[in-house]
Formats: sequence, structure tokens, C-alpha cells
Amino acid sequence: MSTGARAYMKKMQLSKAFTLMESGPVVLVTTSDGKKDNIMTISWTMVMDFTPMFAITTGPWNYSYAALRKSKECVISIPTFDLLDKVVGVGTCSGADTDKFEKFGLTPVKGKYVRSPLIKECLANIECKVIDIVENHNIVVLEGIVAYIDNSLKEKRTVHAIGDGTFVVDGRKLNRREMMRSKLPEGV
Amino acid sequence: MSTGARAYMKKMQLSKAFTLMESGPVVLVTTSDGKKDNIMTISWTMVMDFTPMFAITTGPWNYSYAALRKSKECVISIPTFDLLDKVVGVGTCSGADTDKFEKFGLTPVKGKYVRSPLIKECLANIECKVIDIVENHNIVVLEGIVAYIDNSLKEKRTVHAIGDGTFVVDGRKLNRREMMRSKLPEGV
Repeated sequence: MSTGARAYMKKMQLSKAFTLMESGPVVLVTTSDGKKDNIMTISWTMVMDFTPMFAITTGPWNYSYAALRKSKECVISIPTFDLLDKVVGVGTCSGADTDKFEKFGLTPVKGKYVRSPLIKECLANIECKVIDIVENHNIVVLEGIVAYIDNSLKEKRTVHAIGDGTFVVDGRKLNRREMMRSKLPEGV
Repeated sequence: MSTGARAYMKKMQLSKAFTLMESGPVVLVTTSDGKKDNIMTISWTMVMDFTPMFAITTGPWNYSYAALRKSKECVISIPTFDLLDKVVGVGTCSGADTDKFEKFGLTPVKGKYVRSPLIKECLANIECKVIDIVENHNIVVLEGIVAYIDNSLKEKRTVHAIGDGTFVVDGRKLNRREMMRSKLPEGV
């Protein structure tokens, strides 16, 4: 596993990490069961708090779930538009019989606080601890503990799953900061 | 409240309604406390199941929460890009002292199964029942019971909140249906 590669990723102010997730991009979630690393593709996610806290919907139907449950940690990696085919590939095979890092040419990078690897090729990575599992709804509640962003990437557009096999890429940006001033948390 | 306006909205196959939410658009959620209607702007949402089930993060800090909790129902309305200033306006004032339908020129339309109104100007509306409230995480679990879409609208692009007062509009669409075939629920 590469450690030097983390040099590309700059630590991001943790209180701003929710802004990586609020727009609802499709994300990769890495786990480690202590022996091997795995990746799953998830679009059922939600910001729950600015601290940051995130929810993801997953369960025993995902091979990664056992490792997530046991290790109580993971990394949320946020891929850009140009990685879409890898993202779809990761989402349509299983870690049970596939080394997804190898198959899709993704580079695991050692994290600081968790055993699950960051993904070098992604725009951003958030090391997370599992805070709770809401069993009856298959919701895993995560707290982000450190976030990184790779500002050297030219492509910064993320991609959103529609759910029917189509995706939409980030388009035009609009600024409503003045209108929203009263609602923005301090420092954001 | 207008009933005729519902004619613009065509019923959508309920098993496809999750595709309105999976990309993570900012949405309006309407409620009724039996006396008056209200609207809140929410971007902390998640698809939880194809049936469809949705999670939203909200709590007592939102004026709408009391009505949501009491009535156990709401409508998720999905606005398009051209409604952004209304959406931000709705999100930055309170139903405690404002009739938001009146203030922002939005038209309440009588729903079929819930007392909370649909919003005529929105691209889609989903009548929802509150299935559960996960108190310790401020998660409200909703089941969609009927969904409508207004295909007569020219503007169909939704908008995604970044969380820092900026927004991103839907851009280019990409089709990966063939690659994802094995993972798509039947009929989607």
C-alpha cells in the first residue's frame, strides 16, 4: 500500500467535509477486514450533521458490510466524472471473488486513523468511524474524523446516480451565499 | 387549494419514484398541521429502498417538524433549477411567521392520500407517510405512496446544494444501463 501518495491529498478543514457529500455524489466506500481491502459503490448516502456525520444505507447484501460491521470504520472516497466506468465496475462485481483495487486500477493509500485505505485517484477521501448501525432500517451512521482533498486534479466534477443506470454530471455552479448567510455554519 | 392543477401532474410508476431522489437534489417538503400548510427546504435526504423509502434528517429546529411528527405525513416536492431562488427563500425563513406558499408564489395542490399539499410548480411530487422516526439520529423514515411528474415542464434540470451557499445544476447525462443491467430492479 502506498503511503507517499497521500502527499497529493491535502487535509481539509473537517468542519467543511460535509460539503463534499451534500450534493449527493455517487461515492466509493472502502473497508478492510484485516486481511484484504474492498470497495463498494454507494449512492444511498446522506449528510446528517456538520460535524461531519453521514448515513449510508447498506446491509448484508453487500459483501463489504461484514467488514464495515466488524472493523467499525471505512473511508468514503469521492470519485470524479472521469472515473465513472470504474465506479460502475466496482458496483457491479463482488469483493467475494474480486480484488477491486487491482481489477479497476485504483491505488490504495494508507489512512491515518483507519485501516480502510484511501483511494489515490479520487478527488476527496474521508476517514470515518462507524458510530451506530440502525439495524431495522439498514442505516450505518458514520462520523468523519479526517478529510483530504486533491486539489491538483483538473477534473473536479462529481457524478450523481439517477438509479436507472443513467448518471448526471455536475453542471453550472450558482452562488447564493449572501441569501443563505444566516443559515451557514461558522467558517463555511 | 387548487385541485384542477393536479391534472398537469401525471402519476408515475411508484417503483420508479426513487429515481427522482437518488441523485440528491435539493427538495421541498410540505406539511400540514391541520390548520395551515408549510414548506421546508431539505438537502439532507437519502433513498433507502426501491419501494420507495426515503430518509430525511430533520428535528425540532425546523418549524415543520411538529406537523410532520403529528400528522405522520408529508409531500416531497422536487423543484427545478429555475425555482432556485424560491427554494433558497423557503429555506431561509420560518413557517412560524410566514405563509411560504403566498410569499414565494407557490401553488398548493390537493394530494390524494395526504393532507400536505403538492406544489404545482415543481417537477415531481411524492406523497409520503412517516414510517418511523429514529429519534437519536433525527432521521425521519418515509414511504412514498404515490408519485407524480409534470412532463409538460421544459426545464427538467434539478439542483444540488453543496452546503456552503453554492449549488450545482444537473449537467450532462451519461447512460450506463447496459453495464448496470444486473443491478437494476425489474421494470426500472
